[in-house]
Amino acid sequence: MLNQPTAAFLIIGNEILSGRTQDTNLHYLANSLTAKGIRLEEAHVVPDIEEKIIEAVNILRTRYRYVFTSGGIGPTHDDITTESIAHALDVKVMKHPEAWKMLEDHYRDSPYVFNEARQKMAMIPEGATLILNPLTAAPGFILKNIYVMAGVPAIFQAMVNQVTAALKGGAVTLSHTIRTDLPEGAIALELGRIQQKYPEVQIGSYPSFKHGERSVSLVLRYSDETRLNEVGKEITALIRESGGKVLG
Amino acid sequence: MLNQPTAAFLIIGNEILSGRTQDTNLHYLANSLTAKGIRLEEAHVVPDIEEKIIEAVNILRTRYRYVFTSGGIGPTHDDITTESIAHALDVKVMKHPEAWKMLEDHYRDSPYVFNEARQKMAMIPEGATLILNPLTAAPGFILKNIYVMAGVPAIFQAMVNQVTAALKGGAVTLSHTIRTDLPEGAIALELGRIQQKYPEVQIGSYPSFKHGERSVSLVLRYSDETRLNEVGKEITALIRESGGKVLG
Repeated sequence: MLNQPTAAFLIIGNEILSGRTQDTNLHYLANSLTAKGIRLEEAHVVPDIEEKIIEAVNILRTRYRYVFTSGGIGPTHDDITTESIAHALDVKVMKHPEAWKMLEDHYRDSPYVFNEARQKMAMIPEGATLILNPLTAAPGFILKNIYVMAGVPAIFQAMVNQVTAALKGGAVTLSHTIRTDLPEGAIALELGRIQQKYPEVQIGSYPSFKHGERSVSLVLRYSDETRLNEVGKEITALIRESGGKVLG
Repeated sequence: MLNQPTAAFLIIGNEILSGRTQDTNLHYLANSLTAKGIRLEEAHVVPDIEEKIIEAVNILRTRYRYVFTSGGIGPTHDDITTESIAHALDVKVMKHPEAWKMLEDHYRDSPYVFNEARQKMAMIPEGATLILNPLTAAPGFILKNIYVMAGVPAIFQAMVNQVTAALKGGAVTLSHTIRTDLPEGAIALELGRIQQKYPEVQIGSYPSFKHGERSVSLVLRYSDETRLNEVGKEITALIRESGGKVLG
């Protein structure tokens, strides 16, 4: 395994588990972490239930270097992430002067009032630092190794960009993809032998059935370009020897 | 909480955690279970690592009535789900005569050979029953309360349809959505009071920032239509009193 910090993602929200909303934040975060050389090792999706959030965050934070969360930091009754994380870590939630000022400024320039519900978004666990929200001002926060972010994709993405820019990553995993018209089973054994020969390179085989066209993507992942090219050549040769084509 | 069987979903695959693939199976399964009156309470995403699969499946299967899994049942070296589930439950993997015959028949009618790699897909944990695969013949299986299915969305969906048709669900959760141009913070406190008045109805508030248009969807979920209508009327009145519009 590459020398990379590890991470987990905790998705908080009934709407994901009920089928109302298709989550896209995992995909965005995964790509951002991969580009940074941070290995996302696990993700959990839990409903808006405090005990479930606490349990998940306490498992993940002890196990991984970084824990990212999405969802549940807005002004409504179902936004319980901040309180839940604070309870998980046994710290108080307090009015954060900087968050308060950002929200106050934001609402002063808007048609809306900085009312009690919105003031809730300035309540941040003690000791946390803020993650800025360029869209709606309500910040996320970093508490120890936990990065608490919004669920709305546009805001989540802005927060991820901000946060990952400051994170220390490891060796960056590069990937090569070789697509072929051969079905998986045609070269599976030989591909397994190539995997055994190069255990450091992660070889994945992904069939696709899109638009009536069948193809298989062989994805090689490792930090070293030269080694990836070497393995890629062996796989390309295997495909051709087996009567297949390498697709563009 | 409604009287509904519970479920968890275990997504198995490096490609989801690396950012290569956007998972859509959770969304599909969630909608299928909701329609059936089964409550999806948790989802985990783990890489193609046997210990991770075993750990997750053993946690989820003891905690929920049903566990569904996706991914890792193909012919290649990175398809380790079947073996991992068998190890988790301490049962043997054996050649399944019916699976073998289905695959044999499938390949007889194809340009491909039923070779050793493909024969691996007829190896099924002892005591399991098959989940049929109308696309590529390679079956999934049911072992105790675990439903093991393919990762390719078209196959996954066919398997989910087949499996959920035979499952016993509970009270079906209906949902009403009320969209408004009001921002969340404008009615958050009053909405929280309505939630307290009707604790049996799950009220979710979901802001959206799509295509430059801001709106909020208030989603009411419960099994009883009359009660949903009642709560819906209160929320509609609240929106109008607060100077907002109910959007189509």
